Amino acid sequence: MSVTAAAGFDAAGVAAGLKGSGGLDLALVVNRGPLTSAAAVFTSNRSKANPILWSQQVIADGAVSAIVLNSGGANCFTGPQGFQTTHATAEAVAAALEVSAGDVLVCSTGLIGEQLDRPKVLAGVEAAAVALSAEGGTAAARAIMTTDTVEKTAVHTGAGWTIGGMAKGAGMLAPALATMLVVLTTDAVLDATELDTALREAVRTTFDRLDSDGCTSTNDQVTLLASGASGIRPEPADFQEELSAVCADLARQLMADAEGASHEITIEVRGAASEADAEDVGRSIARSNLFKTAVFGNDPNWGRVLAAIGTTGADFDPYRVDVSMNGVRVCHAGQPDAPRETVDLSPRALLLELELFAGDAAATILTNDLTHDYVHENSAYSS
Amino acid sequence: MSVTAAAGFDAAGVAAGLKGSGGLDLALVVNRGPLTSAAAVFTSNRSKANPILWSQQVIADGAVSAIVLNSGGANCFTGPQGFQTTHATAEAVAAALEVSAGDVLVCSTGLIGEQLDRPKVLAGVEAAAVALSAEGGTAAARAIMTTDTVEKTAVHTGAGWTIGGMAKGAGMLAPALATMLVVLTTDAVLDATELDTALREAVRTTFDRLDSDGCTSTNDQVTLLASGASGIRPEPADFQEELSAVCADLARQLMADAEGASHEITIEVRGAASEADAEDVGRSIARSNLFKTAVFGNDPNWGRVLAAIGTTGADFDPYRVDVSMNGVRVCHAGQPDAPRETVDLSPRALLLELELFAGDAAATILTNDLTHDYVHENSAYSS
Repeated sequence: MSVTAAAGFDAAGVAAGLKGSGGLDLALVVNRGPLTSAAAVFTSNRSKANPILWSQQVIADGAVSAIVLNSGGANCFTGPQGFQTTHATAEAVAAALEVSAGDVLVCSTGLIGEQLDRPKVLAGVEAAAVALSAEGGTAAARAIMTTDTVEKTAVHTGAGWTIGGMAKGAGMLAPALATMLVVLTTDAVLDATELDTALREAVRTTFDRLDSDGCTSTNDQVTLLASGASGIRPEPADFQEELSAVCADLARQLMADAEGASHEITIEVRGAASEADAEDVGRSIARSNLFKTAVFGNDPNWGRVLAAIGTTGADFDPYRVDVSMNGVRVCHAGQPDAPRETVDLSPRALLLELELFAGDAAATILTNDLTHDYVHENSAYSS
Repeated sequence: MSVTAAAGFDAAGVAAGLKGSGGLDLALVVNRGPLTSAAAVFTSNRSKANPILWSQQVIADGAVSAIVLNSGGANCFTGPQGFQTTHATAEAVAAALEVSAGDVLVCSTGLIGEQLDRPKVLAGVEAAAVALSAEGGTAAARAIMTTDTVEKTAVHTGAGWTIGGMAKGAGMLAPALATMLVVLTTDAVLDATELDTALREAVRTTFDRLDSDGCTSTNDQVTLLASGASGIRPEPADFQEELSAVCADLARQLMADAEGASHEITIEVRGAASEADAEDVGRSIARSNLFKTAVFGNDPNWGRVLAAIGTTGADFDPYRVDVSMNGVRVCHAGQPDAPRETVDLSPRALLLELELFAGDAAATILTNDLTHDYVHENSAYSS
């Protein structure tokens, strides 16, 4: 059900002809109200795609009637012509739905530096508008897929209200063409400011801690829309808890489907002086090609973990750190502990635990190994 | 001739049995004087190997009589026992050469977290001391190799004085076990302060701008020894020029032999507001797995260049940048320029040029592509 699980939302996914495969490539999600509250977070990359530049303006007043998303092209570094395509797409949605173009978000994903086929996009919008239904969530989730092998959806319910979501890609810091696009919907009664606060907190500890290859897309966008159709105003803490759970659920699905990965790596950093330190330490490991290739080879090379964290500015003593892999403590107090041969890295899941002995803060970073398939999938994307 | 090209230096390379292959694995370089001036730069990694911790103390007074280097083990995160091995190694050199252990530098490279076989190292030192000769430079250069496929040496001459050098690895920010170790020797008359100034300037623009995979070794060390045996005091500018040339020569050799690489990528960033900005921008590209896999696939995916540089804090407008690959300008003013199909990436050398239009500063970063062979070589190092 994904984005149509919550009351007040219709969706559709259609084939607009943007993908060479002929598959679904354009999704439309409409908020039927009564509320049109919305919040969104965008890529931190300064090289922003045209739909990001457009959507940042749309979200400014906290009101969104619809969001249209296409795969098959990022519409990034495509100049004024590309921006006009984004604008025309929003106008087409507005005309079809009789809403304001200034209340229509646009997302795109695919190759940078090539123009989208505007007539195909506009025809796709018309087809999607006709196809809209309360059962359209799954088709919409399929239409935003690029190298994703499965659609990612999640639904959580509160006391009389629901949050649904769909996602594609593999991380706010994303592999390959795998820009991360997420649309979350709820029928809870919440205003735009409340949504913004909840969304930023949820993203901070979920999508922002999924780091597949350290590369930040030009097109990442996470959007939360509220229809208020349930008529119920949840306790902020309850809504936060469920929203964070939906985001964590989708983030795990993105990690599981990351391009070419053969291991899903959960990096738990504890005993940090601050949460920022813990995140920094975890991310340095997630971005170490040496560590990630070792994991691919089922090699519990903990020296590469310590080499990675030594490049951070976090407050800890590298010679006091404990490192465990799948429950086996391989390094203690700057020296080898259990023999590395006792670590079994053959399962797909790897739990890497670090105890920094510098404080009480913690953070968990999700990543993948670096494999032959990653190199293969990313070495000839535009050809 | 490498480190024995300059007058006043003897060297040797021997097989101490540290490498499973039985190859040369211990090198000794001795400064016969009359001067014993020296300077060194060390890894910026906070996780420093025992030989780094030792050598930082030795270099403090600017006097060095000898340097001993081993492959076959990094002696890092090996605790007090590991540090004692480093200390014992320096003592063994001191005893064999009748110098002070406090004037003996030690370098190690290999796997982290395993003890070096101390008896083998000490026996190797004795064998190396016996084998020392003015023709030993090549054997020494071979003994420090790990995954290097060829030894790297360079010799440049000034007006009556010489600089020679040897190197192993692939970058101050180095791939795999490829810790970068460099020993430079000169018979010019220079004191330790002069050497330090010249070495830091030379390293800053050469080895520090070689970035194979963004990973910083725990064992990197670049050492410069001066014997004064030529009796000639060079002009500082002349010495700087030749020293920088030797370092640039060795850096290029390291890039050419980086693990698994199929392309040598030179990233020239121009028009930056500062040299630091230019370096930052170049390094962001050198660390983009997406760009590097694209190059492996001969795919001129300039969108990944712009996505990479958009993550920096450098002062420029992403929508004004020019990007050229092998002389073909593929992006201009935020839009596609020449068709990407016109770029030929089949040669091993790739020249990537960026014009930021933000100032007059420039920097060049050297890197490699990310290949199947890189993943293969680094996925099972310790097994």
